[in-house]
Amino acid sequence: MSSPVTFINIIDVDPSKQQEVIDILNEGIEQVISKRPGFISVTVLASADKSRVVNIARWERADDAKATQTDPAAAAYAERTAAIAMPSPGIYAVVSEHTA
Amino acid sequence: MSSPVTFINIIDVDPSKQQEVIDILNEGIEQVISKRPGFISVTVLASADKSRVVNIARWERADDAKATQTDPAAAAYAERTAAIAMPSPGIYAVVSEHTA
Repeated sequence: MSSPVTFINIIDVDPSKQQEVIDILNEGIEQVISKRPGFISVTVLASADKSRVVNIARWERADDAKATQTDPAAAAYAERTAAIAMPSPGIYAVVSEHTA
Repeated sequence: MSSPVTFINIIDVDPSKQQEVIDILNEGIEQVISKRPGFISVTVLASADKSRVVNIARWERADDAKATQTDPAAAAYAERTAAIAMPSPGIYAVVSEHTA
């Protein structure tokens, strides 16, 4: 695949630890993710009920997203998240977009 | 709340029915969601492993998103999705954004 892809990590978390997950993600984005080849953009969203954090990253190529998942520095942040929450990462394709 | 909010529906689905869920969402967006007060934009994403569909909608106000969830026409589409998949809707706030 050579068109941009979206990596979404849906993270279930105890509400008492939602902020901690956000802090780990933000640190990982600043230190590692944003400097990786093929990085386009990333958005971190927090659910109002505090039970989820959703991390949405766009990459130039699916291979860039996959290489980042296996990069040791990125994996270390993923392990810190997995130690306190339940991540569910995956590669997605945009199938429709509408704007008002 | 009076600032823009993000509504995310994380839909778990049997891979054989991923396209059917996408079709229902797209019809609901065109017929109902995109015409609702406060609608800004919506993106539908399909996981490469076919086990999830993620629907991300931006609204002017949290009340616009909540009113849409209880609108009968919108609820009818939500029921059609729930009949063949497992939706998990929620209101989210953007906590960080980074661009390359």
